[in-house]
Amino acid sequence: MSKYSQRLTRLQSEIRSQGVEAIFISPGPDLRYFTGYDAVPLERLTALVVQADKDPFVVSPYLEKSAAIASPIGEMGLEILTWQETDSPYVKLQKAIGNVTNYAVDGRMWAEKLINFQTVFTGASSISGTEVISSLRMIKDADEIESLRAAGKAIDFVHEQVPNFLKAGRSEREIGADIANAILEAGHKTVDFVIVGSGPNSASPHHEVSDRIVQNNEMIVVDLGGTMPDGYCSDSTRTYAIGQMSDEYLHRFEILHTAQQLATASVKPGVTCESIDAVARNYMNEHGIGDLFIHRIGHGIGLETHEHPYMVSGNTNVVKEGYAFSIEPGFYQDGKSGARIEDIVVCGSDGAIVLNNRPRELFVV
Amino acid sequence: MSKYSQRLTRLQSEIRSQGVEAIFISPGPDLRYFTGYDAVPLERLTALVVQADKDPFVVSPYLEKSAAIASPIGEMGLEILTWQETDSPYVKLQKAIGNVTNYAVDGRMWAEKLINFQTVFTGASSISGTEVISSLRMIKDADEIESLRAAGKAIDFVHEQVPNFLKAGRSEREIGADIANAILEAGHKTVDFVIVGSGPNSASPHHEVSDRIVQNNEMIVVDLGGTMPDGYCSDSTRTYAIGQMSDEYLHRFEILHTAQQLATASVKPGVTCESIDAVARNYMNEHGIGDLFIHRIGHGIGLETHEHPYMVSGNTNVVKEGYAFSIEPGFYQDGKSGARIEDIVVCGSDGAIVLNNRPRELFVV
Repeated sequence: MSKYSQRLTRLQSEIRSQGVEAIFISPGPDLRYFTGYDAVPLERLTALVVQADKDPFVVSPYLEKSAAIASPIGEMGLEILTWQETDSPYVKLQKAIGNVTNYAVDGRMWAEKLINFQTVFTGASSISGTEVISSLRMIKDADEIESLRAAGKAIDFVHEQVPNFLKAGRSEREIGADIANAILEAGHKTVDFVIVGSGPNSASPHHEVSDRIVQNNEMIVVDLGGTMPDGYCSDSTRTYAIGQMSDEYLHRFEILHTAQQLATASVKPGVTCESIDAVARNYMNEHGIGDLFIHRIGHGIGLETHEHPYMVSGNTNVVKEGYAFSIEPGFYQDGKSGARIEDIVVCGSDGAIVLNNRPRELFVV
Repeated sequence: MSKYSQRLTRLQSEIRSQGVEAIFISPGPDLRYFTGYDAVPLERLTALVVQADKDPFVVSPYLEKSAAIASPIGEMGLEILTWQETDSPYVKLQKAIGNVTNYAVDGRMWAEKLINFQTVFTGASSISGTEVISSLRMIKDADEIESLRAAGKAIDFVHEQVPNFLKAGRSEREIGADIANAILEAGHKTVDFVIVGSGPNSASPHHEVSDRIVQNNEMIVVDLGGTMPDGYCSDSTRTYAIGQMSDEYLHRFEILHTAQQLATASVKPGVTCESIDAVARNYMNEHGIGDLFIHRIGHGIGLETHEHPYMVSGNTNVVKEGYAFSIEPGFYQDGKSGARIEDIVVCGSDGAIVLNNRPRELFVV
């Protein structure tokens, strides 16, 4: 049985135990996870249909059928229900499975598709499939951990080159273009984001790049990520500086560095997701910069850069062996300065396996 | 008044006339169209909120606020309602606007977000905003036509170089990598798709690339697209051949070429969308290859590669000046051979303005 067939069997068992009658999964990371089919999300409906007690099958536009069969779906032997350009695939699917009292859809499905399902499955309740699917996807198997490890090494190799690109007088955009090339050359298939936040821009956590010219005596937050050919994502942040930083900034950076290390050391099976955030936040609070840590400490990672579990206050779910997520505290003073340190870790049987291993100190160019 | 403010005013007037009380627009092409904010779609809710009779505003995670203000949203002076990591943005938004009897969402919103809206707006009906929004987006203004023209020139320049990459003995993947580089060098910001369908793979319209080695005496369908820095997309197909093709294939290709030209010549304000498909299909039917034309003739294009209007049987909507769409008939014989010719056109006041201008004949390398 292929790994995809095994995953489908687990999904069936999961929806059965949760009382979900059917789940429809459109192109995106969920479809890739369960079938290996890396279909492009487009307006025409493609969907994997999984019911509690029947054989899974795929709905596909007729003109995508050969692409579906060329994917692992072909080997899995799943039946493919095709539709022609002038058919309604929603009506066709509803007729194929009949009435249901409830169904789930993958969380990333386009709203217009969900609304089409709601129109044909009148009276049935629609559920976000995010929870049921993420309960499976959160636990990475050995192959997935190897994939994340390779992605981590690739982005570490990019960070190793970053100091060569950082020079006062260059714009964030120029630096970002060099980094984007390095991300591809390191083996990623796509560049997902390149954040080069210099000086005051370092205070905006999701700043990307701008035409701002990097000056001497400035910090630069560099947060990078890409997707490897097998679909697994990298994501790592280091903070750099050109020239001299203020004592206050260096002091805060030390606190941040310790907070990041304490959070990493707290990872083990059985702790709650929110506790990992709290470890860093409490330490930063005790040292006077907790109010500058304006985002959660991390997010799951795998076939998506951001996926469950989210390491955030309020998430009392318990961390299990195989969970992969970022640990990325930061501090941000509006319009002035910021810093962040981010690693991807996997929860092992007795602690964190850290997948990013570049030095975490402020790297002064 | 900026172009974005004008578009928002038109959207307000459109939802008012259709009886829609509010529309929520999440990151994606619709948000970019109405505000210029090119936000990355992530799990945290960012949304433009437009109500029939109130000032539009934006819901944003606190940590994205500076990114939102740095976009044209800052200049537009839209109010930004921020939420913190442990808030529910859905509850916060519901409290801000109060009860409604209906609301629309952008068609590409993630299903899990729509389900969250459905949970907080109990009893209200949710509508796909695709129709109301596309009624505006379908009509391209002069700036947008210039953007599409630049995208068209860029992809034409790539097709000009394609013959240099096509050699028997190279794999589709190798050829595709050269083409992807050329797409970026021609000025695109991203490569959206590279289809290199050689020999039997030419019969799969949405084939991408494979490790198949291109042979002598084979056709190669090359369908290429990317997104320019301003967000507008290119999309053009030409069919190439290495060596000798059969008389039957050459004969079919002539029919296809004429069908594509007849469809282009039929474009003018007032004809129906489906009629443009029918012109090519009828001609191909009359010449015996209509059954091999297995997809619609085209799709709208702009900030998305595929958007409304769809040129397909059943779409009786009338073409207006400013509509931009592809004209791309093809023929496909399962497992054997295929061909497609695709141009992007804009409907002008008295006919099609053709944005792709590489020779359409079978290009024999």
